[in-house]
Amino acid sequence: MAAARGCLYGLGVGPGDPELLTLKALRLLRAAAVIAYPAPETGDSFARGIVAQWLAPGQREIAIRFPMRPGAASAAIYDGAAATLAAVLDEGRDVALLCQGDPLVYGSFISVFLRLAPRYRVEIVPGVSSVSAGAAMARFPLAAGDHSLTVIPATLAEEELEHRIGFADAAVVIKLGRHFAKLRRVLERLDLLDRALYVERATLENQRIAPLASVVPGTVPYFSLALVRRSAMPDDRGSS
Amino acid sequence: MAAARGCLYGLGVGPGDPELLTLKALRLLRAAAVIAYPAPETGDSFARGIVAQWLAPGQREIAIRFPMRPGAASAAIYDGAAATLAAVLDEGRDVALLCQGDPLVYGSFISVFLRLAPRYRVEIVPGVSSVSAGAAMARFPLAAGDHSLTVIPATLAEEELEHRIGFADAAVVIKLGRHFAKLRRVLERLDLLDRALYVERATLENQRIAPLASVVPGTVPYFSLALVRRSAMPDDRGSS
Repeated sequence: MAAARGCLYGLGVGPGDPELLTLKALRLLRAAAVIAYPAPETGDSFARGIVAQWLAPGQREIAIRFPMRPGAASAAIYDGAAATLAAVLDEGRDVALLCQGDPLVYGSFISVFLRLAPRYRVEIVPGVSSVSAGAAMARFPLAAGDHSLTVIPATLAEEELEHRIGFADAAVVIKLGRHFAKLRRVLERLDLLDRALYVERATLENQRIAPLASVVPGTVPYFSLALVRRSAMPDDRGSS
Repeated sequence: MAAARGCLYGLGVGPGDPELLTLKALRLLRAAAVIAYPAPETGDSFARGIVAQWLAPGQREIAIRFPMRPGAASAAIYDGAAATLAAVLDEGRDVALLCQGDPLVYGSFISVFLRLAPRYRVEIVPGVSSVSAGAAMARFPLAAGDHSLTVIPATLAEEELEHRIGFADAAVVIKLGRHFAKLRRVLERLDLLDRALYVERATLENQRIAPLASVVPGTVPYFSLALVRRSAMPDDRGSS
């Protein structure tokens, strides 16, 4: 008789500070016989680094290596990652797949989840997103009252980026990197440049927070975001 | 000589499941001599309930009572809450102010923060938002690739609600309650009703997840949300 299949746990491990792990993610991480995490083609996994202090020698580790060059992660890579995890799940073992931030907000977890969810049990543990973390570090209220909040990738075409930021009450623009100069032009045209904040590596020791207008484009990493509010904060009378 | 002023900690305590507290929030909660939390005019505080098992008898507790009737929380209420906390901070004591979900995402914390930040040290600990929690429980990928993600209060006027949902790649509509029937009409007009998911009290024991089309309007509490995707999930080639 075949053993019962294992369960895939998608564990949000938060934005970078290990203390922003949830109690639930820590419990499941410690209980897992097999831990998997995304990693670059060579070098260390950021997600593994967040939880490294809690990993035990007896735990099996699977690095799922992705090309980190822009646009290089292909369907075939995710197919391979899903097949690797499926082989472990088929042995009846649970796998804890580490996801930086929150698993369902722009994570590579999503591509793996969509492939495995039809055939395997999956449990998702939400985490603190980089959006919440960046706002907390910059002390930037994201939304209140009737306002909407939009998370927008800077990878969009310039016109689309302008259209979306111009329509949002408050926007968090993510994945800046080499798209920073484009974002800066957009904010300038929308007359929002002087109000925008820049947050790099939120909650890590080398975190940087600055007025966006002061940032030199060539220095911007992928893991950075911009916070900008088009509408004034709603007053305190609220509404509902 | 006056004592140094205390520090206000805005602690995100997550969406409801106590295990979704972060290690950092738990540490600061246990260390705090004074705990404050929002509460209804009569009855228990939801935020306090999340962390009740970790409160110690020696900790002073301050319930900040808000009228929970729609639209009833006024500037005067927040002025009073800020004054209450300021009095403790002026004694040189730190205060841990509990915030359900994430402090800067539609929390009453924002109104208190804006009043106290000019005069006091404030540290904000981000938490797992109800948006992330609702998506995790419903296994609903929020955003990937070039897609944007918009959080929209159902309290908006019907036309504005329709406009915003119609413009989003994926939308999380919050604060449903008595606005549910309006949201349902909007989704029907946008031809999105059959794809929308409904999540009530995410991560709590009495959580409910259902196709939105199946939900009876009169039964919907304020702490519920809708998940809807207008655009198909981006393919796996990503972009950046």
